[in-house]
Amino acid sequence: MTQPPLRIALSQLNAVVGDISGNEAKIAAAIEAAREAGAQLVCFPELALTGYPPEDLLLKEHFLADTRAALERLAEQATGIVAIVGYPERAEDVHNAAAVLADGAVQASYRKLHLPNYGVFDELRYFQPGERGATIEVDGVTVGLTICEDIWQPGPPLSDEALSGARVIVNLSASPYDAGKGARREQMLQQRARDELTAVAFCGLVGGQDELVFDGHSIVVDHEGGVLARAPQFEEAMLVADVDPVTVGSARLRDTRRRSPAAAARGSVDQLGSFSTGRHSPGAPVIEPQIAPLPELVDEIYGALVLGTRDYARKNGFEHVVLGLSGGIDSTLVALIAVDALGADRVSCVTMPSPYSSQGTRGDAHRLAENLGTELLELPIEPMMQAFDAALAGVFAGREADLTEENLQARIRGNLLMALSNKFGWLVLTTGNKSEMSVGYSTLYGDSAGGFAVIKDVPKQLVYRLARRRDERAGGGLVPPELFTRPPSAELRADQRDDDSLPPYEILDAILEGYVEHDLGREQLVARGLPADDVDRVIGLVDRAEYKRRQQPPGIKITTRAFGRDRRVPITNRFGG
Amino acid sequence: MTQPPLRIALSQLNAVVGDISGNEAKIAAAIEAAREAGAQLVCFPELALTGYPPEDLLLKEHFLADTRAALERLAEQATGIVAIVGYPERAEDVHNAAAVLADGAVQASYRKLHLPNYGVFDELRYFQPGERGATIEVDGVTVGLTICEDIWQPGPPLSDEALSGARVIVNLSASPYDAGKGARREQMLQQRARDELTAVAFCGLVGGQDELVFDGHSIVVDHEGGVLARAPQFEEAMLVADVDPVTVGSARLRDTRRRSPAAAARGSVDQLGSFSTGRHSPGAPVIEPQIAPLPELVDEIYGALVLGTRDYARKNGFEHVVLGLSGGIDSTLVALIAVDALGADRVSCVTMPSPYSSQGTRGDAHRLAENLGTELLELPIEPMMQAFDAALAGVFAGREADLTEENLQARIRGNLLMALSNKFGWLVLTTGNKSEMSVGYSTLYGDSAGGFAVIKDVPKQLVYRLARRRDERAGGGLVPPELFTRPPSAELRADQRDDDSLPPYEILDAILEGYVEHDLGREQLVARGLPADDVDRVIGLVDRAEYKRRQQPPGIKITTRAFGRDRRVPITNRFGG
Repeated sequence: MTQPPLRIALSQLNAVVGDISGNEAKIAAAIEAAREAGAQLVCFPELALTGYPPEDLLLKEHFLADTRAALERLAEQATGIVAIVGYPERAEDVHNAAAVLADGAVQASYRKLHLPNYGVFDELRYFQPGERGATIEVDGVTVGLTICEDIWQPGPPLSDEALSGARVIVNLSASPYDAGKGARREQMLQQRARDELTAVAFCGLVGGQDELVFDGHSIVVDHEGGVLARAPQFEEAMLVADVDPVTVGSARLRDTRRRSPAAAARGSVDQLGSFSTGRHSPGAPVIEPQIAPLPELVDEIYGALVLGTRDYARKNGFEHVVLGLSGGIDSTLVALIAVDALGADRVSCVTMPSPYSSQGTRGDAHRLAENLGTELLELPIEPMMQAFDAALAGVFAGREADLTEENLQARIRGNLLMALSNKFGWLVLTTGNKSEMSVGYSTLYGDSAGGFAVIKDVPKQLVYRLARRRDERAGGGLVPPELFTRPPSAELRADQRDDDSLPPYEILDAILEGYVEHDLGREQLVARGLPADDVDRVIGLVDRAEYKRRQQPPGIKITTRAFGRDRRVPITNRFGG
Repeated sequence: MTQPPLRIALSQLNAVVGDISGNEAKIAAAIEAAREAGAQLVCFPELALTGYPPEDLLLKEHFLADTRAALERLAEQATGIVAIVGYPERAEDVHNAAAVLADGAVQASYRKLHLPNYGVFDELRYFQPGERGATIEVDGVTVGLTICEDIWQPGPPLSDEALSGARVIVNLSASPYDAGKGARREQMLQQRARDELTAVAFCGLVGGQDELVFDGHSIVVDHEGGVLARAPQFEEAMLVADVDPVTVGSARLRDTRRRSPAAAARGSVDQLGSFSTGRHSPGAPVIEPQIAPLPELVDEIYGALVLGTRDYARKNGFEHVVLGLSGGIDSTLVALIAVDALGADRVSCVTMPSPYSSQGTRGDAHRLAENLGTELLELPIEPMMQAFDAALAGVFAGREADLTEENLQARIRGNLLMALSNKFGWLVLTTGNKSEMSVGYSTLYGDSAGGFAVIKDVPKQLVYRLARRRDERAGGGLVPPELFTRPPSAELRADQRDDDSLPPYEILDAILEGYVEHDLGREQLVARGLPADDVDRVIGLVDRAEYKRRQQPPGIKITTRAFGRDRRVPITNRFGG
């Protein structure tokens, strides 16, 4: 039997949470574009119609009803093509579902089987799992349906769908980014294709949503794991590829395990319908699909930070951002990201020198703003410092200056940035990195005051790598070179250096990775060769800083465990380590 | 057959999350005390050994190992008595378990079947459910074991245990408080007892843990729902009661459904062992059990706020708190609670008058502090206002004064309170109520700056009721009477009143209850008779204030849906309502 290829379009779109009508319009346009590209099947990301994750919006009946109404309208567009759209299905319970839109109607839905409830996920708070896999037939080709986590787990529903004859398995996904996730996910998809002897078409959500970035990276692999098409990361795309059902079938003829549908599998899969698009012609030209290159890891992380920042600003209605530029490496990196995310004319930098600010950092802040082409405001803080000191002189009489006075400086700066935000409607970007955030080396309501914490999940050493790499890509000369070599300092008192009160960042970051990302205890960290006194000190600092982290603005997750929904620890907690 | 009563002790203790050795010591002392009281069985709350909820501490292998070691040590104390202790059991997976300690050893564990994963709960993030009910026999009496949610759901494991012959069902609980929860829970327990024809012994955790308060309210009811014993709310207690297995058995003889164990139930229940305490003597005097009275609702809520505040301070190592006293009703209520929680000598109040502060509020703040016997500091903020105005004059040139200048005042006050906190190690209590928090009627880093937001879940009208009631209980004269009648104002500009920019609080609170607590949409609220323009405005304000709420300090949950872990909504969210 000769059978023509099936043309699949994957619409890697940037949905906005809660913007049902906006997402509906995007999906409608993509259905039209896919049809024009000759596709017989077009797939959308998980919960594309509501954005992901909609969180407790899913507890509102009227939210679910509005979503259903939009789905019904979209179905009318689905003629001459089959569209698979992710949405929350309200039945007796609520399901994370993939609607099959064909012949102008909602034909059926597949319900996600594997609901993640770990890490950043809370899906069991909202959804009931489905009970079995599902397939559809599109112009004679059997297609298996899965949603995100369904394909991260070997076995059913994937294996049941393959045994039931699926030549291609589509996966609707909203897969939160962390460093290197793209490559790990691609490898997993290749292995699933080889294991089940089916092509796999993975449609990924793209965009930033509060703490999360979805990287897109949609991909089609053949049954041997070969990459047929790959969309770029961090941008919207329509990926079109032809999948050949005959070679899949032939491969199965050579593999007895896969030759015919097993009886057991047949009962585990719902056949949701057979559809003919009328577009199925053996003579149609096979397109040349896009295969976007995979970026280097440091560039991928930078891309995630840029998209996360751009989308937080854009989706929340901010046209302009402001940040304090200290002349240190952290605020430098945030300024670079902000300019790449929004353009230099939408970024204002502010230097707020105190008597402790060095000439070096002050000069570097000015040079950086000039190189970037951003506005630079200068607001010296000494008059406010003096006013606070005078106001508190009576009650502080007889006490030494200590962290109190350092925090006051940081809070005066926070107040100034917030005043600019209030007056001009700007979003304040904070500049603290993950190493600082971990040990509480920051001032609540001071340097941590703002709407979005761009690099809160970026460890200090990675801050340097990202800034250096961005400077290299610009051909150098963007970042004043002293910034890479000057010892880090908060400059809140004379001759202060970070390593006066913290271990060197190589050691600090290693302890933090083990403690925060891998849940290791003191003994395990010491057994890895980390200095016991540093381990004890850092663990104590991390635990005591939880109350501060709870009041931080959201920021972009780029590690396997970010502070926020990803790591839920009590503030009141006497477990030491 | 005559059979003597079974003496049960319920140790309503205040466990501290993560303080395994401290909790172990409390449990050991309670085992000893229960034995001295002649009890044959002593029960502890859910996860008593770790505190509840331990959250992501449960992801640490060494935390689970330390807990197990403590459990083994405790088992050695369990001689001449059977102890049921809540702990996280590390097996192939992790279970929310009740250990049976008897004859000096850990004999077995029951594993919680129903794991709540809604509201404030994330138990499916951590635990695998058990598979069946369990009973033990203590001195010949069959006792069914359940944990918290297990008894909130009718049916198994409760019904299986009863059918398998349980004469009393114990429930180890950590049941987060909200207004009226005590009475609702007691009613439910009475119904379960009548439905299953067993006595029920409910052992509740007591204490504050970050956002949650556990109210204790341990209780023993007989098989007709009659209250045999009731512990007080909001304090530690050891409740001892005698349960008569013979009257339960007789009642079953009259009820064919319950006469004998059903075959189906027998297979659904594990019999975990038969234990003899050697203390079982028909001649032992039946004790007169405690039956604590049920408080009025307003007193119950006040009690929750006092305990939540005391425990947040105490468990986090604060000996002293500070709050800004504005002369308004919110800070008045927080001052009352703080004094009741910690004592007047551990509370400092601060007035921070501006040129907009009225003589009335300034006088009232002084009178209140005097009546309460707390320290009162006065720190006028005008010099800082002038310094900020001067610093920003250039960049704000040509712009009208607006919310920016109001927010600056609030932030100057926040900085002063935080400076006192930093210098003296005091915990800053914030004073915003739920109505304000809902609509964002507060200044981020200003009046919301602090470590604990005592009344963040208390709607404005309830603030008045609580303060008035506390004043009445003091015989009047504690709160200056003008505070109950003066129109609420933030006093951030001349002649400002809350109702200039917000609907009257009766309407505001009604909209908020429907929108926040019951997930109603615009149409449903209008259909309830609420003004459409107010509904639209309030919904918009609530949605836009989510970014502010995300940066608030934790505070005490007293409604069915508090802001925080209880209500998880995206910041980036275009769903209007």
